[in-house]
Amino acid sequence: MDDRVREHARTLVDWSARIEAGDDVVVQVEEGAHDLGVAVAEALGERGANLLSTYRSDELTRAYLRAHDGEFEANPGYELALYERADSVLILSGTNNTAGTADVAGERRQAYSKARRDIREARLDTDWVSTQHPTRAMAQQAGMAYEAYRDFVYDATLRDWEALAEEQAQLKEILDDGAEVRLVADGTDLTMSIEGRTAVNSAASVAYDSHNLPSGEVFTAPEATEGVVTFDVPMTIQGRRVRDAELTFEDGSVTDFAAAQGEAVLEDVLDTDEGARRLGELGVGMNRGVDRVTDNILFDEKMGGTVHLALGRAYDACLPAGESGNESAVHVDLITSMDEGSRLEVDGDIVQEDGRFRWE
Amino acid sequence: MDDRVREHARTLVDWSARIEAGDDVVVQVEEGAHDLGVAVAEALGERGANLLSTYRSDELTRAYLRAHDGEFEANPGYELALYERADSVLILSGTNNTAGTADVAGERRQAYSKARRDIREARLDTDWVSTQHPTRAMAQQAGMAYEAYRDFVYDATLRDWEALAEEQAQLKEILDDGAEVRLVADGTDLTMSIEGRTAVNSAASVAYDSHNLPSGEVFTAPEATEGVVTFDVPMTIQGRRVRDAELTFEDGSVTDFAAAQGEAVLEDVLDTDEGARRLGELGVGMNRGVDRVTDNILFDEKMGGTVHLALGRAYDACLPAGESGNESAVHVDLITSMDEGSRLEVDGDIVQEDGRFRWE
Repeated sequence: MDDRVREHARTLVDWSARIEAGDDVVVQVEEGAHDLGVAVAEALGERGANLLSTYRSDELTRAYLRAHDGEFEANPGYELALYERADSVLILSGTNNTAGTADVAGERRQAYSKARRDIREARLDTDWVSTQHPTRAMAQQAGMAYEAYRDFVYDATLRDWEALAEEQAQLKEILDDGAEVRLVADGTDLTMSIEGRTAVNSAASVAYDSHNLPSGEVFTAPEATEGVVTFDVPMTIQGRRVRDAELTFEDGSVTDFAAAQGEAVLEDVLDTDEGARRLGELGVGMNRGVDRVTDNILFDEKMGGTVHLALGRAYDACLPAGESGNESAVHVDLITSMDEGSRLEVDGDIVQEDGRFRWE
Repeated sequence: MDDRVREHARTLVDWSARIEAGDDVVVQVEEGAHDLGVAVAEALGERGANLLSTYRSDELTRAYLRAHDGEFEANPGYELALYERADSVLILSGTNNTAGTADVAGERRQAYSKARRDIREARLDTDWVSTQHPTRAMAQQAGMAYEAYRDFVYDATLRDWEALAEEQAQLKEILDDGAEVRLVADGTDLTMSIEGRTAVNSAASVAYDSHNLPSGEVFTAPEATEGVVTFDVPMTIQGRRVRDAELTFEDGSVTDFAAAQGEAVLEDVLDTDEGARRLGELGVGMNRGVDRVTDNILFDEKMGGTVHLALGRAYDACLPAGESGNESAVHVDLITSMDEGSRLEVDGDIVQEDGRFRWE
C-alpha cells in the first residue's frame, strides 16, 4: 500500500474526525475507495474505535432507483437508528465512473433524497467528514494521468493543517471585524456587506466546523451585493459545462447574467427560487496544494488564489445565533481566480493583491 | 450483466428471503460480489423494499483486528440498533482471497466474535439468507477455471426449488416418522436414533427455515450413535486439510478416531468440549446441481448422493419445543459419499441405495 494512503487515513481519523476509543464510527466505502477503507479500518483499530462499514456505489443506486416505482418510504427506521446512534461518519468517495447515474431521472433522484431528509439530518448531526480516494475515473474527469492525479490528491490532502488553520485564522479575524468586502479582478468589481457575520476557518477538521478533507478556505455569508463578477474557472453544474459566467448584482440580487457556455444552466439555477438570485457564501480558497482545476468542487473551491461565491443557501454557522441567512433550495458555487491585477479589500484595506495575501 | 446474476438476485429476494414492499433490508456486499449487489438492488427496487448496503471485506477486517488491542466493546449500540430493526439480511459472499485473514491470530478473532454475540443473535432473528457470488478466488479454491466455476455455482443455485422442496418433503416425512437411521457405505456402518426429532426440509427459503442459497438437504438431530463412519470427501477445517477421517462411536460418543491427513485438527475439534464428541446433525444432500466437491461447505454438504454428520451443536428446529439437543461450542460438518454399495435405512427400510433414493 502506498504510504500516502495510510497517512490519508490517519489524517482523516485523527485530525479531521477526532476519533477516540469507543466511538461508534460508520465508514462509507465507495466501490473505488477500498484501499483507503483498509487503511481507515487499521487506523480505527489502533484508536480502539468501533467500525461498521457501509457500501456506496452509483451502480447499486442507479439499479435501485430505476427499478423502484418512486414512492419511497420516508426515513426507514433501521437506517435512521444507525445514524442517530453513530458518533462519526467517514465518507470515502472514490467512484469508478463519474457518469454512473447519468440515466436516472432527476425526479426519481429528488423523490429519494426528499424521503431521506431525517436520515441525512441525523448523519449531519454526527462528526462527519467527507474525503476522496483517487480513482482512475476521477483522474479522467480532471483530464489527468492516474499517477499525476494521485500526486495532486495527496498534495492537496496531506497538508500541515495546523499551520494552515493558523494562517486562515488571520483572514477569519479580518472578515469577522470587517463590514464590507470588495473584489476586483478581470471582469469583476463587486462589493458586499459582511457586517455582523462570522467567518468559518475551514481547516479540514470537525474541531473547526469543517467537514471536508481536503479543505482550506475561509467562508462567510455576504449580503447587499452590488456590481459585476466574472467566474473564469470552468465548472460542471448539474452535469453541464459552464464557462465564463458573468453576473450583475443590484441591491443584493442578480439583475443580469451571461455565460460563454452553459447560460441555460445558469438560468435554471437563478430561476429556482428568489434566494437563488442572492449570494449565500463568499469563500476564499487558501489551499496551495490545490494547484489546478480538476472539475471537482471538493478541490476546486479550496484552490489558493481563488475566490468562490455561491448562489443560494447560506450556512447557519456564519450568522448570529437564531438568525437565518439567505434561504434557497440550491447552493451553487462559482469560482473566480485572483490573478495579476486582482484585489480583495475589506473596508478599503487590501487583504490580497495579485493573488497573494498581505502576510505572504 | 450475465442473465444468471439477475436470476440469482431474484431467486434470493423472492424465493429465499420472501421480500415484500416496505421491508427494511440490509444487503451485505463482499468486495467481489459487486455485480450481484447491483442485481439485488434492482430486485429490491422492483419489490419496493428499503435498501441499506454494508461492506464486507476480509482486508478491512484483517486491518482492523490486527491493529486493535483486542479489548473489544461488547455489541456497539449503533450496529445492534440496525440489526434489531432490520427485517431481512442478505449476505452476498464473494471474496477475492480465501486466505485474506490467514495472519489474524485465532484469539483476536474469537474475542471479536465473542464481543458481538448480541449483534449476531439480532441478525439471526431476521429473515437472513447467505448466498455466494462466484469469484476467481473461489474458483481457485475449487481448483476450477473461472468460467467453469460460474457454471457450477449457477447450476447449484438456479434450481427448481419448489420441485426440490416437494422431493425433500418425502425424506422429511420418513425421518420424522422414523426411530433409527443406519448408514452403510465403504468404511461405514453406523446407526443412530432420531426418535421424536423433527427433520428440516432445507429448500433455500426462510419459508422452510432454510437460510442458505443454494441449499438442498434434509437434516435432523441424531443421538445414541453406534458404529464406524469414514468421511471420504476432503474438507478444510479451521484452515487445515482433512482427508479420510474415520470415527468410531460407542454409546453416542466418539471413542476412537483416525485420518489419512489432518488427524491433529480432528483431535482439536473432538477435544473442544464434551458435546464435540457427539453428533449434532445428520444431513442428507439432495442438490443434484452440486455435482463435485469445491472445498466450500455451502456447496459440498448439499451435494446429491452425500450424507454429512456434524460433530457438536444441534439445531433447535430439530428438537421438541423447549428441549435442547447436543450442546457444544463447535459445529463441524464431515461428509461421506453414498456411492455404489451404500445404503441409507430408516427402521430397516431402504430409503437410498447406491446413491439413489427409492423414488428416483
